[in-house]
Amino acid sequence: MKRVIESVPNFSEGRRQEVIEEIVGAVRARPGVSVLDLSSDRDHNRSVLTLAGSEEALFDATMALFDRALALIDLRSHKGEHPRMGAVDVVPFVPVRGATMKDCVALARRVGQEVASRFKLPVYLYEEAASSELRRNLAEIRKGEFEGFPGKIRKPEWAPDFGPAEVHPSGGVVAVGARPFLIAYNVNLATAELSIADRIAKAIRHSSGGYRYVKAMGVALEKRGIAQVSINMTDFRRTPLHRVFETIRSEAARYGVEIVGSEIVGLVPQDALLAAAEHYLRIEEFSPDLVLENRLEED
Amino acid sequence: MKRVIESVPNFSEGRRQEVIEEIVGAVRARPGVSVLDLSSDRDHNRSVLTLAGSEEALFDATMALFDRALALIDLRSHKGEHPRMGAVDVVPFVPVRGATMKDCVALARRVGQEVASRFKLPVYLYEEAASSELRRNLAEIRKGEFEGFPGKIRKPEWAPDFGPAEVHPSGGVVAVGARPFLIAYNVNLATAELSIADRIAKAIRHSSGGYRYVKAMGVALEKRGIAQVSINMTDFRRTPLHRVFETIRSEAARYGVEIVGSEIVGLVPQDALLAAAEHYLRIEEFSPDLVLENRLEED
Repeated sequence: MKRVIESVPNFSEGRRQEVIEEIVGAVRARPGVSVLDLSSDRDHNRSVLTLAGSEEALFDATMALFDRALALIDLRSHKGEHPRMGAVDVVPFVPVRGATMKDCVALARRVGQEVASRFKLPVYLYEEAASSELRRNLAEIRKGEFEGFPGKIRKPEWAPDFGPAEVHPSGGVVAVGARPFLIAYNVNLATAELSIADRIAKAIRHSSGGYRYVKAMGVALEKRGIAQVSINMTDFRRTPLHRVFETIRSEAARYGVEIVGSEIVGLVPQDALLAAAEHYLRIEEFSPDLVLENRLEED
Repeated sequence: MKRVIESVPNFSEGRRQEVIEEIVGAVRARPGVSVLDLSSDRDHNRSVLTLAGSEEALFDATMALFDRALALIDLRSHKGEHPRMGAVDVVPFVPVRGATMKDCVALARRVGQEVASRFKLPVYLYEEAASSELRRNLAEIRKGEFEGFPGKIRKPEWAPDFGPAEVHPSGGVVAVGARPFLIAYNVNLATAELSIADRIAKAIRHSSGGYRYVKAMGVALEKRGIAQVSINMTDFRRTPLHRVFETIRSEAARYGVEIVGSEIVGLVPQDALLAAAEHYLRIEEFSPDLVLENRLEED
């Protein structure tokens, strides 16, 4: 089975179309990398690129991305609503298939080291790749942003993991890390009462006593006249979709409310849906290798 | 998304290992074809090869298979328990992903025409590719076997679809066709009573009033001390796994019996399991394109 890692680099340009195209074009030109999504936001003045491929392919593509972004983006004149600290702001690596979190941590370290030495850029490792608890949280690293970093970087506790202890003049600093795949999953309820969706969200989310890898809130879908439980599944291998779905079903039933449907926003790894099929069909000795397509040889 | 067609050629050699290896080796040597399975039976004196690939790759691989099988197998001296009429006995093409039944019928016709002209072999099109109702059923075509075919082929209703109206001296005749994917699926019951599995099998199978694309029978699993409903799903797109599973659950409950698990024997197309996930999670506007792996570019 083909190894697949996802990477979701965020870079600080969401307005100049020709700059975005040159950066993304340089990534596309690297062999073996699939560009799954590009979303640019004018207000944030920021673009989010979703890539997938092998370690080698992503390593190459990431270098091409840094090369172009550092040449074309100058944070000294950058304005946008989204907090940022670098021309390339953050680069997470995400295991999807046939690769582990450990592989992604190793890749983050390799990329961080190379970026630091090749581009003289301070690099912070974050989340699963973090070198200390404080640095697990990206928001904590980014606090102060580009403008505040010349002071922050001199504090001993904020010495970069790789690269010079000096902010890159136009490119700032970058966070490189590893994290689980994030599934954006919404469950629609046969009621217009937002308060029911709110109470269900509270029941399933980690912050108020629910599942460890669930963030959730109630949302009113005005157009459809229904309420929705809007969910971020931050580790679908540990808290699977079907378990959350069934808990919502049971909580909703307590109010006499049915689930009318669910939505996957963006993409979902095959394993997350296979796990649901395995669960409901009670398949014994299940393996993704039972799926014909997963047995095809790579050309 | 990569187009995937499956082909399951059966050839009349299950004993001489070197012959089997030469035939399968010739197929493996063709680019773009995955050999998913090879199962040879000494008593049947027959081998079943499971291949997957694009139309072009399968066309090439099939020609290589005929070339070697016709050179190495002589039906005049072939004996085996399984009925057979050709050195290559039957070649079905099966749509798995991104290809339709129509594509497979077209491929069966192309392969049939080429095989007829290249090897002077009479070809019968069967199942979805059949030229008449009588020829849909492979058993009907094969009746009389190799030994009876010199007489049968002269009857006007048994004139071959392609090739000479004369049996190939050593290679006989061949059936080439198109059919849906067959899933072998078993559901295990929390009871040792075979009669309950039998009654459930009767409830779900086509022949006794059940689902159109289900064949089923009760089986005793002596070692585990339980009864099983053993199922062939002959068209999972029209009669899906989850519907059959839920019907078994409901029928079993009528006897106070639970389902302890289910088994997929061999391989299953991704779409069959995604359909189960879609059903149980009630996913709105589902498409296989939501699956990240299905969006990867082919290298």
